[in-house]
Amino acid sequence: MTTTPQRPFTLLANDKSCRARRGVLYTAHGAVNTPVFMPVATQAGVKALTSRDLAAINAECLLANTYHLYLRPGTEIMELAGGIHKFMRWDRPVLTDSGGFQVYSLSHICKLGEEGAQFSSHHDGSKHLFTPENVIAHQSKIGSDMWTCLDVCLRNPAKEPEAKKSLEMTQRWALRAMKAFRETVPEDKIAKTSGGQWRVGTPLLFGIIQGSIYPKLRAQAARFMAERPVHGFCIGGLSVGETAEDMNASVEAVTAELPEQAPRYFMGLGTPVEIWDCVERGVDMFDCVWPTRTARNGTVMTTNGSFAIKNAQYRRDFSPLDPECDCFTCRTYTRAYLCHLFRSGELLSHRLLSLHNIRFLTRMMETIRAAVENGDFAEEKKRFLKKFATLKPQSRAVPACPLDL
Amino acid sequence: MTTTPQRPFTLLANDKSCRARRGVLYTAHGAVNTPVFMPVATQAGVKALTSRDLAAINAECLLANTYHLYLRPGTEIMELAGGIHKFMRWDRPVLTDSGGFQVYSLSHICKLGEEGAQFSSHHDGSKHLFTPENVIAHQSKIGSDMWTCLDVCLRNPAKEPEAKKSLEMTQRWALRAMKAFRETVPEDKIAKTSGGQWRVGTPLLFGIIQGSIYPKLRAQAARFMAERPVHGFCIGGLSVGETAEDMNASVEAVTAELPEQAPRYFMGLGTPVEIWDCVERGVDMFDCVWPTRTARNGTVMTTNGSFAIKNAQYRRDFSPLDPECDCFTCRTYTRAYLCHLFRSGELLSHRLLSLHNIRFLTRMMETIRAAVENGDFAEEKKRFLKKFATLKPQSRAVPACPLDL
Repeated sequence: MTTTPQRPFTLLANDKSCRARRGVLYTAHGAVNTPVFMPVATQAGVKALTSRDLAAINAECLLANTYHLYLRPGTEIMELAGGIHKFMRWDRPVLTDSGGFQVYSLSHICKLGEEGAQFSSHHDGSKHLFTPENVIAHQSKIGSDMWTCLDVCLRNPAKEPEAKKSLEMTQRWALRAMKAFRETVPEDKIAKTSGGQWRVGTPLLFGIIQGSIYPKLRAQAARFMAERPVHGFCIGGLSVGETAEDMNASVEAVTAELPEQAPRYFMGLGTPVEIWDCVERGVDMFDCVWPTRTARNGTVMTTNGSFAIKNAQYRRDFSPLDPECDCFTCRTYTRAYLCHLFRSGELLSHRLLSLHNIRFLTRMMETIRAAVENGDFAEEKKRFLKKFATLKPQSRAVPACPLDL
Repeated sequence: MTTTPQRPFTLLANDKSCRARRGVLYTAHGAVNTPVFMPVATQAGVKALTSRDLAAINAECLLANTYHLYLRPGTEIMELAGGIHKFMRWDRPVLTDSGGFQVYSLSHICKLGEEGAQFSSHHDGSKHLFTPENVIAHQSKIGSDMWTCLDVCLRNPAKEPEAKKSLEMTQRWALRAMKAFRETVPEDKIAKTSGGQWRVGTPLLFGIIQGSIYPKLRAQAARFMAERPVHGFCIGGLSVGETAEDMNASVEAVTAELPEQAPRYFMGLGTPVEIWDCVERGVDMFDCVWPTRTARNGTVMTTNGSFAIKNAQYRRDFSPLDPECDCFTCRTYTRAYLCHLFRSGELLSHRLLSLHNIRFLTRMMETIRAAVENGDFAEEKKRFLKKFATLKPQSRAVPACPLDL
């Protein structure tokens, strides 16, 4: 096991006034431009959208879920299919999360022990065990490009001693996951080319940094992980109901301790404002069900804020959802038509609004990347926020399952 | 009012052994190759599909619903939008039905009088009146290419005297609708070109032939309508629970009396077998919610019959839904992936299966058209039915509202 891992990430620019960065993460399925928003393909499908739709709106990378795919269709079937890329016909990068969060938040019964997390399927109550080792094996069968180490998630609020205890278990598990990773991916086919780019022939491993809302714990966790042979870093256990101040302080404590030459991924974030805030604090990667979930509720994101498409004023509004948007929905349909579809309960509404809302976020990330490149991140952020009405942060469900440490 | 109307329809071929025909119907939005299957865009949208999807699978013409669009978004909004083609961004032909069937089957209260049909909206109970005249006005606002006359629909079974009485009212209403049509579309901009094609600058009017399952009534109704200034003929009030024998006898009685140089449209049909049977009896146009409704239930149509995608055997089946199909779903995804999406309750399943099932029917119509052109309809029908397992006819809901004549 090496302690100076290859980290196939290239920093293209740093903002001078804050920690915002512009980078490229190289994977076995191509490069990901960061900062990036990854649409959520929980069950190997982004709700209502095809892989072709997602490529057309410049989704650079998808997030899939180890817990869900393990239970259905089963990782054995994912392997038979030739991996998630062939299964869902998506030839760009895919990151899988560890399943940790879902084990604690979705499964009916969850019991933690040193070996791993025992849980009952939320589908049929069947019993299962996730260990740091088998979660690596599951991700190998899923065939994703970026794997994550099984972690222990805490409910919010958590007291500091409890947070420390669960963090220590996360770290012991991370070491086991890294060992399993090295055994599963024995030969490191990652090399820098003469042109300064990377050639990546293997999956990458991401370590998860926990520590609840305690900056000291977060910093310690970040230092621990920074020295390990991982290719990237996840910030887990946030956006679960804590205040924006606590969240931002935790993020700052983490990014201060991480190496520059590796990507940082905030799991499960977020709304547009949260993303700007976290890019400012040095985060590179984001994912959230928010754009598709709100789309199915009829909420439309635009650079001028959000609105509910069902409102009576849109019945006769023959303009596009967002005149600045280049997505298929905005180039093709009017608010009046989309209002009608939503009011009529037509499935097509979910599809067209989801497409637009994801494109809104991928366009926002393009704006963010250009701003860092051009050295005017702070100004662009101010400009964006001025136009965009502040939205309440959308929390991930708070894990309801008591931890049994 | 002319008694020798222009009927912008060209017969290209007649089968020698049966009444099957191959034709072209010209409309203000282009030509429709018949026999044709029209996907149902009840509320100005085919469930889960965009107009672009429908063009890609060679849907030649859509059916929209006057009753639904009148209630929501309202025909005034359809008119403000510039008509249904601009509203739903579909630039090929659209036919609207009369709303008669829905008034009787969907609305809460329905009272028929000589003036028209009074009914309560199934959305909010609000009271409305459809007359032969205002249904023409509504279709004018909707902006469809083919309009239909308001008719009286009967529940099945209906006794002959009742059927006769309602037919007579349908005929009196048809005369009023034709008058209203001539007043709404004053100048007949329909002309045959020197090349034998048609130039059509106006909507077309279709008369509806009723008569329940009584061949004599059906024949009388057909002769009545054949002499009127309409561009095409609808066969209404069938596929509502009667036997296949009764249905086929009624169709035969009708097509025997209709002019060759005009299209015949069987409203609300049907399953593949029913379509072959009715083409054989001289019907040119069909519509049905069946391919999209069954898709949402997970039923897949193939040339080898239908199957339920959720069945366990498809979990590991990495072949396309139908190896003979050229649709996006079949060219892109496996049965295993579609089985997983359906079992996972993913909306994308409805979309991908609907696309396939409609393409199955548009491909079947291409086969039928080629068979009539090549003079081997009977053989092709036999070949098709041999491969295709017989499916039970899918009835439209039987109207539950008592007629108050």
